[in-house]
Amino acid sequence: MKETDFLQRAIELALEHSADGLHGPFGAIIVCADRIVAEGWNGVVERVDPTAHAEIVALRAACQKLRRIELVDCTLYSSCKPCPMCLAATYWAHIPRIVFAASAEEAEQAGFLDRQLYAEFLANDADKKIELVQIELVNRTAPFERWLNNPQRHPY
Amino acid sequence: MKETDFLQRAIELALEHSADGLHGPFGAIIVCADRIVAEGWNGVVERVDPTAHAEIVALRAACQKLRRIELVDCTLYSSCKPCPMCLAATYWAHIPRIVFAASAEEAEQAGFLDRQLYAEFLANDADKKIELVQIELVNRTAPFERWLNNPQRHPY
Repeated sequence: MKETDFLQRAIELALEHSADGLHGPFGAIIVCADRIVAEGWNGVVERVDPTAHAEIVALRAACQKLRRIELVDCTLYSSCKPCPMCLAATYWAHIPRIVFAASAEEAEQAGFLDRQLYAEFLANDADKKIELVQIELVNRTAPFERWLNNPQRHPY
Repeated sequence: MKETDFLQRAIELALEHSADGLHGPFGAIIVCADRIVAEGWNGVVERVDPTAHAEIVALRAACQKLRRIELVDCTLYSSCKPCPMCLAATYWAHIPRIVFAASAEEAEQAGFLDRQLYAEFLANDADKKIELVQIELVNRTAPFERWLNNPQRHPY
């Protein structure tokens, strides 16, 4: 399949699931070796899960299917530019490439926070809308020390 | 309970689960009306899910328990500063306040990507390590139009 065909599939998923009012208008697929490994669509309202964006759903399904957390050989195709949550998730899954259709500005015109959220990442913590408070408890790095001292640990 | 007690509980969860090598050294709790609603710890390796960070796990559990996606009356306590994925997830859940103990730099010293990931959000898309390609298909906003035309839609 061609790159535009994969992207059309992501848009198709967004279209299919944006008719019932329970799913945000977003779709995504994970492609590995020219094959669709997993598909996802927004399930925030239906699943009562603010993290159930199309990209996260597809990415989690791909990891389950491939039984691994590093998708270095995969591409994410998304009907819209991934929001910061989904972009960061893509990094954590080590996916090197994202292809998308609509922009964050176009998502904003449909009432979604994406563009504002990207702007928040450019602001200093003190200027963010969310209140971020650090309390430097003396034992705050104890979990890291325990982790580093464990030769059985699985880095990710 | 005091704020430091809640934060100590998050660190305790991180400590408990960082001994077996299967869980990253992170813990988080969601507090609503001075009560712990949900607890989470990192399950990336165990669950084969790169998105199973402590904060995401706790946030998803809190939404399930409270049966709602808007946690405007909740606070997230995390053993470490949330990564960009978890920070953005907190916005999507409309949680107004985050209290954390360890810094992104301290997480980096333990081998985690957090600080680099924040730096990626300051870079222009063209300069990011991940390849972000937009293909402006003509029907790219069709899902948004279908969504906006549906009076039954549930904005989130």
